[in-house]
Amino acid sequence: MTSTTAFDLTALGVRARAAARQLTRASTGQKDRALLAIAQSLEDCRPAILEANAADLDAARARGLSEQLIKDRFDLARRMDGIIADVRRVAELPDPVGRDYDAQVLGNGLRRHRRRTPLGVIGVIYEARPNVTVDCAALTLKTGNAAILRGGSEVFGSNLALIQAVRGALETLNDPDIPADAVQFIESTDRQYVEDMLRLHKHIDVIIPRGGASLHQFCREHSQIPVIIGGLGICHLYVEPSANLDAALPVILNAKTQRPSVCNSLDTLLVHEAVAADFLPRVVEQLRPAGVTFRAEPGALAYTGSLEGVQAAGPEDFDTEWMALVLGLKVVANLDEAIAHIHAHSTEHSDGILTEDPAQAARFVQEVDSAGVFVNASTRFNDGGALGLGAEIAVSTQKLHVRGPMALEELTTYKWVVEGDYHARE
Amino acid sequence: MTSTTAFDLTALGVRARAAARQLTRASTGQKDRALLAIAQSLEDCRPAILEANAADLDAARARGLSEQLIKDRFDLARRMDGIIADVRRVAELPDPVGRDYDAQVLGNGLRRHRRRTPLGVIGVIYEARPNVTVDCAALTLKTGNAAILRGGSEVFGSNLALIQAVRGALETLNDPDIPADAVQFIESTDRQYVEDMLRLHKHIDVIIPRGGASLHQFCREHSQIPVIIGGLGICHLYVEPSANLDAALPVILNAKTQRPSVCNSLDTLLVHEAVAADFLPRVVEQLRPAGVTFRAEPGALAYTGSLEGVQAAGPEDFDTEWMALVLGLKVVANLDEAIAHIHAHSTEHSDGILTEDPAQAARFVQEVDSAGVFVNASTRFNDGGALGLGAEIAVSTQKLHVRGPMALEELTTYKWVVEGDYHARE
Repeated sequence: MTSTTAFDLTALGVRARAAARQLTRASTGQKDRALLAIAQSLEDCRPAILEANAADLDAARARGLSEQLIKDRFDLARRMDGIIADVRRVAELPDPVGRDYDAQVLGNGLRRHRRRTPLGVIGVIYEARPNVTVDCAALTLKTGNAAILRGGSEVFGSNLALIQAVRGALETLNDPDIPADAVQFIESTDRQYVEDMLRLHKHIDVIIPRGGASLHQFCREHSQIPVIIGGLGICHLYVEPSANLDAALPVILNAKTQRPSVCNSLDTLLVHEAVAADFLPRVVEQLRPAGVTFRAEPGALAYTGSLEGVQAAGPEDFDTEWMALVLGLKVVANLDEAIAHIHAHSTEHSDGILTEDPAQAARFVQEVDSAGVFVNASTRFNDGGALGLGAEIAVSTQKLHVRGPMALEELTTYKWVVEGDYHARE
Repeated sequence: MTSTTAFDLTALGVRARAAARQLTRASTGQKDRALLAIAQSLEDCRPAILEANAADLDAARARGLSEQLIKDRFDLARRMDGIIADVRRVAELPDPVGRDYDAQVLGNGLRRHRRRTPLGVIGVIYEARPNVTVDCAALTLKTGNAAILRGGSEVFGSNLALIQAVRGALETLNDPDIPADAVQFIESTDRQYVEDMLRLHKHIDVIIPRGGASLHQFCREHSQIPVIIGGLGICHLYVEPSANLDAALPVILNAKTQRPSVCNSLDTLLVHEAVAADFLPRVVEQLRPAGVTFRAEPGALAYTGSLEGVQAAGPEDFDTEWMALVLGLKVVANLDEAIAHIHAHSTEHSDGILTEDPAQAARFVQEVDSAGVFVNASTRFNDGGALGLGAEIAVSTQKLHVRGPMALEELTTYKWVVEGDYHARE
């Protein structure tokens, strides 16, 4: 199901801004009640949602999309319980909004502190997974933000049904501080609205793209609104000679194969030359049964070239995010060469070292400038849940505002509150 | 003195990135020694700097620029002592880089914390004041960032002389962790380089524009790099009936007249109707001797229209940042109307309330969504120095990363450091 209905994006932005202002009055209790009402409404609307989803799946099959893609990304049937449970879980997380911090009484008696506040209006542009619709609605509402959501065309009907359940819950709730316009959805699949959205800086405070590298690049190039760039991970592990090699193998296996299609999965293994002859063939033998194939630069090829599944690395291979069961292999002379390779090829998402030498670990952590740096741990841990943040809406690889998981606190900003006794500046 | 020499901006970006990586190894002591060396070099180079500045001033006079503008913005002679003292003061400020925080041992034994790190490469685009060159060089170096500076054409020669003193100090210091390329200057006044700079996202991590609204808008529209938008302040004070009106008058005088050409000066005074008849004429009588003129909407005009210096407000007046001795006057029925006016007209820079009623103050602070909200204090306090932050490089009115003063901590980001015992993700 697709739509090309023309509608007024600016009017939608104005409503979002008004909703964001109403939301500044909502307490944590009010917001959590709204989240529980949304969870219940999703439960109640499950038949209608799954009917709309089934129609989307049929249309996708008719268009010849692969059954694996359809099951992996579009199908809601197996996911509804998890989606509803996640909304209830967000209601239980601590609310960062309203927290006062950094209080100080200045020399002139002026009292100042910072207070956590919502960002305002958050625009989310995402691709096919319809669960993102509910996920983003819940996280933005929890943090007192209004959301403008723009989902992909393949699951347009599913998204409409989900949004109807979410907004229906808010309408029934009838809380003046939490209007239904807190969550709005762009009810058109016309791509022009994405570009228009990126120019709506008066009404949208931040854009979060959730999708592939091309979506992020499009947003970077066209947005007049601050964008959280991320989601692209060319990730490295460096095996230092002091590492416990037996213990290192399952970490490498985990980083590469546990979920190869996500951004924090391993792309390139760097191995110190002192252990390469012994260790690289063990890596190949350990990972190949999981379906992994290998791209080795000449130094690594010397030790692995005769093994099944190994081929010479091409010129682009170390700049490729594989998103698949492929692993680059390279031998390096020392930590400096490992860091230089990472600086040249990493997307600054997740990079790690396997070592028993604290000095080597400390230098790696200090000099590798990535959102997540790992010592003796899988790169797969760069994730809001895995780092103990409870949830995440995106993973940032830019430097401003947030690096790595964008969790509830990173969905807020702050204001300066300054209180005086009729203070004038000298 | 102007220049249109073509040069390779990308090469400059590559050198900045390399310098930023070297800087990650510099300790606070190394950076502070470099700052003191820069201060000494500025002292030593003072004659050459002032000679270049004199040539810029002559050229500005020859072009017919006003003597006040020249004295206010271009002239370095009276400022050199202050500029040099400021560099020494930055050396004494605490260094945010390297601070570990938010440490937690997770259920699976994984240890994680965040570490403050430099942003990387900071691009600063500024207009005429040459003191900004040294100011930005000192603040970025203190925080371990490399800087690419782009100054205005009117003081191009002054900037070149200042940069030569700064880079000369770093060259003489010869510290491998603090290369001279930590501070680079775009040695051309060709405007094309501004646009090119805004596209250099591979080599620049953040753009800080320092200048008027049009520069900020240009950066917002053309930058592919995150920009700190700010510097535009349409600022309000609301006089609530419980306020001590005698004490309120000097606060209003201060906010309007202490430095009318800066972003945190007062633009519009909102007065509750219960005290307007008494208070508005007093405001006019108090501020007029300082040279202030007034633009009153009909409700305020009713009480002030017969007074000298008061005229009816035009349709754009409440959306104008005066930057001059002009004050808008408006009568409002209550707090709701005051907040609604602020939401409609404020640039979310600095807005305040004058009141003795804690409930009114609390609602104002909660609902007015500005970088700085003030209770019984002048808006002029929205400033890094005045809020106790030691220094600032810009004042942000956007929501991401920093609101209000961008001080040393806001010139940094963080990385996640995750340490395990060969942890793999379940």
